[in-house]
Amino acid sequence: MTDTATAPHVTPEEKSMEDIVALCKRRGFVYPASDIYGGINGFWDYGPLGTALKNNIRDWWWKQTVECPPIGPDGEPLSVVGLDSAIIQNPKTWEASGHVGGFNDPMVDCTETKKRYRADHVEVLIVEGRGMWAFMENQPDTIAKKLKKAKIAIDDGERKLLTELDVAVYPNIIGPDTDKPGTLTEPRQFNLMFETFVGAIRNDDAKAYLRPETAQGIFLNYKNVVDTMRVKVPFGIAQVGKSFRNEVTPRNFIFRSREFEQMELEWFCAPEDSPKWYDFWKHERMNWWKSLGVTDDNLRFRDHDDDELAHYSRMCVDVEYKYPFSAPSFGELEGVAHRGCFDLTQHQEHSGTKMEYFDQANPDKDKQRYIPNVIEPASGLTRGVLVLLCEAYTPDESRAAKVFMKFKPKFAPIKAGIFPLVNKEGMPEIAHKLYLDLRQKHTVQMDAKQSIGKRYARMDEAGTPFCFTIDGETANDQAVTVRHRDTQAQERVPLDKVTAFLDEQLAD
Amino acid sequence: MTDTATAPHVTPEEKSMEDIVALCKRRGFVYPASDIYGGINGFWDYGPLGTALKNNIRDWWWKQTVECPPIGPDGEPLSVVGLDSAIIQNPKTWEASGHVGGFNDPMVDCTETKKRYRADHVEVLIVEGRGMWAFMENQPDTIAKKLKKAKIAIDDGERKLLTELDVAVYPNIIGPDTDKPGTLTEPRQFNLMFETFVGAIRNDDAKAYLRPETAQGIFLNYKNVVDTMRVKVPFGIAQVGKSFRNEVTPRNFIFRSREFEQMELEWFCAPEDSPKWYDFWKHERMNWWKSLGVTDDNLRFRDHDDDELAHYSRMCVDVEYKYPFSAPSFGELEGVAHRGCFDLTQHQEHSGTKMEYFDQANPDKDKQRYIPNVIEPASGLTRGVLVLLCEAYTPDESRAAKVFMKFKPKFAPIKAGIFPLVNKEGMPEIAHKLYLDLRQKHTVQMDAKQSIGKRYARMDEAGTPFCFTIDGETANDQAVTVRHRDTQAQERVPLDKVTAFLDEQLAD
Repeated sequence: MTDTATAPHVTPEEKSMEDIVALCKRRGFVYPASDIYGGINGFWDYGPLGTALKNNIRDWWWKQTVECPPIGPDGEPLSVVGLDSAIIQNPKTWEASGHVGGFNDPMVDCTETKKRYRADHVEVLIVEGRGMWAFMENQPDTIAKKLKKAKIAIDDGERKLLTELDVAVYPNIIGPDTDKPGTLTEPRQFNLMFETFVGAIRNDDAKAYLRPETAQGIFLNYKNVVDTMRVKVPFGIAQVGKSFRNEVTPRNFIFRSREFEQMELEWFCAPEDSPKWYDFWKHERMNWWKSLGVTDDNLRFRDHDDDELAHYSRMCVDVEYKYPFSAPSFGELEGVAHRGCFDLTQHQEHSGTKMEYFDQANPDKDKQRYIPNVIEPASGLTRGVLVLLCEAYTPDESRAAKVFMKFKPKFAPIKAGIFPLVNKEGMPEIAHKLYLDLRQKHTVQMDAKQSIGKRYARMDEAGTPFCFTIDGETANDQAVTVRHRDTQAQERVPLDKVTAFLDEQLAD
Repeated sequence: MTDTATAPHVTPEEKSMEDIVALCKRRGFVYPASDIYGGINGFWDYGPLGTALKNNIRDWWWKQTVECPPIGPDGEPLSVVGLDSAIIQNPKTWEASGHVGGFNDPMVDCTETKKRYRADHVEVLIVEGRGMWAFMENQPDTIAKKLKKAKIAIDDGERKLLTELDVAVYPNIIGPDTDKPGTLTEPRQFNLMFETFVGAIRNDDAKAYLRPETAQGIFLNYKNVVDTMRVKVPFGIAQVGKSFRNEVTPRNFIFRSREFEQMELEWFCAPEDSPKWYDFWKHERMNWWKSLGVTDDNLRFRDHDDDELAHYSRMCVDVEYKYPFSAPSFGELEGVAHRGCFDLTQHQEHSGTKMEYFDQANPDKDKQRYIPNVIEPASGLTRGVLVLLCEAYTPDESRAAKVFMKFKPKFAPIKAGIFPLVNKEGMPEIAHKLYLDLRQKHTVQMDAKQSIGKRYARMDEAGTPFCFTIDGETANDQAVTVRHRDTQAQERVPLDKVTAFLDEQLAD
């Protein structure tokens, strides 16, 4: 090795979301959707590198959840099957689930700026005798100028959520993007489901919804799976797929978008075993996020208080991540919820289909018939992409690119770059052969343009963990120089050992 | 081997769609969406085996298209990048693409039965002086009874498409599902895009569409990809994802559904090279379908006539498959279209973004600046699932299940079953260990319930190519019996060679 410097450690507080978003566009991770038409608020397209990163997370979740599920508390491997249900389902689904009646956000408009806010995301700074200043939750800096002008400090008053205030005081509140008080309307409820019409007639009978979660597609198929797949409780049904929520204020890059991707597992178990499984999945999921290379310090559990539990939920814990936009605080990454028998009972009532399970194995005859309880580890795949992007982003002034993406090698979009030092003396031919060999097993990229330094810089921004350079010596010693992304260390590896080297580095 | 019988060959004509659909539900390949609520017309859910089959096809396409693209005509590997764009885009996208103005189907209603038909899918049998009988295209058997009653044979008259007839004769036409003439309305145009509203206000400005194809998401990002990914023409952008079409008459199981999945590649090339690439991709795609194990006899090319070309298309060829519902005729599986520079030019005009490419490598300076031409191999992933299901379905009276699914091993949802002969004498423990070993690399399933015969029957219906039985001898000879699905032949394989055996069988 010619260099043994270790990679710098950078905390979320030291990372800028603006810089991350800029790198994402510059290097083809994430583009604004419909970019050439000025975009569309709340929608994003995943570029070549972002798609690869997303697929890597998706495949790892599927492997660890469906194909190779964890070993359970009794030492036996768990039983989980996969599913891929439609985004558009019979609308009765969403009546039963409670989404038609209850999936609402309170929303206020500003009559001055025509902007719209989620009322429960607006904070108000109340300064006795000096006014009431509204701003978006966790973004007090956005009103810094206004406060400065009024000679008020953010600590001068009391902070309350807009939803905690009586509408009678609204005329005194100065909206987040205006200087005049009294421009905010009363909150009104707004259903988050996108609506459409199926068939040629547009009436209430033809109305349908884009699913706001993949979970209900699983509950709809619970009976079909039990009847056809020879599964026995406890077992799980897992699904990855897109969901849609017509968010009032999409924000924080791909953290809260209107179209997103979920990875959800519904784990069906006997009611008396549900506390054990809740605990099991809670820890299992935390460990899974760590297996992606996310730092311990940036992950934590947060138990939901009783008063914030959703209507279907008995217990819920979030796995939270310290995002650069939330730091030093944390934001949601995954929820593990104890849904009791709420969903299956609702669908039984609305559809008339019996959801009762007969548990022959239970020695207590009184407990053999039941509607299973459900433990649900529900995470966002696209939110997982955001976490890996934030986690990997590492400013480093010592490098040409001033930054590198420190993905765990296994999840990097490109595993290796292959560089012929110059385009002559047989180097391109050797590089070409190495590329054709490696691409059979790994996603690799050939780069023959510009200086080696520039090529390293590009691969640093792409987060490519290894670069193999074929140089003037290669024809003689049948070896290449490998450069390690994190340490910038270099070492010589025999050509015929490159595949084995890569296999080993990517094994964990 | 104890049995060397070869697997029977069954033609599409001998297969029944009803039987295939029934097996798909019975074994967890495909369920009707919202089954417990009576379904929703045109939507399907993929069960555990169907999801695995679909993922296997998706991953093979992605591997062969993006990660390991083909070697081009000049011996160099092609350059293709992946993309995953949003389903909902800025609505201007669909004005530019022509879908808002032109993506319509003609539709007729039956005033008697309230049924609705696509006018261009209705055929009419005209029998001089005896009446005009309408029926769905390719399904003359559905009016057999009516004709029999009227003592008319299907060959007694002339067959025409409803759209070829003047509306003046409609009063004489007997609709497909009625006995009275004159119940069909005049055709009217019906746009196939699902509409929704983004944001809280429902007006024309907020109207958006669910994409009817993934292709436009690629054209929207052409400029971003060129600017950020260092690609040079010719290159491709590939995408897999859901699309939605509000079909008037969804039919033929998952062949024509309202929500479906596509695999599309847009190949950007210099105008003068486009005929070469059109030809290249045409043959490449046919070979790809053969690599899935689809029989040569059941695949063919069909060139589009000039008068059936879409507005954007200069040349188009379909790869067609002989589906059981179309046999002895063929139906569409994939289209390879020469889209010229239509899409990029349209988006340039509507967005004001320059789409011109500067081709430094072209020695002819007059030809260095151009809007690339596009060759588009566009196939249905869910249609690919249907093809593999139809192709694999093999009635066989000699078996307990009376049928088996003859998937090419590599694409089978379950690669191997692991059976302890009885649940004692150490067999479950050996089986358990083998299962834990194999599942690291392959999707395998343990089955310890009921007789071996019943277990084989279940695996035959699932299409599992290999079953390993751990019996009373295994503890002594450290070997298991492998049963081959297609031939039902059995042979003994050493326990420590099972992984290698499976690796080899799944290699091609």
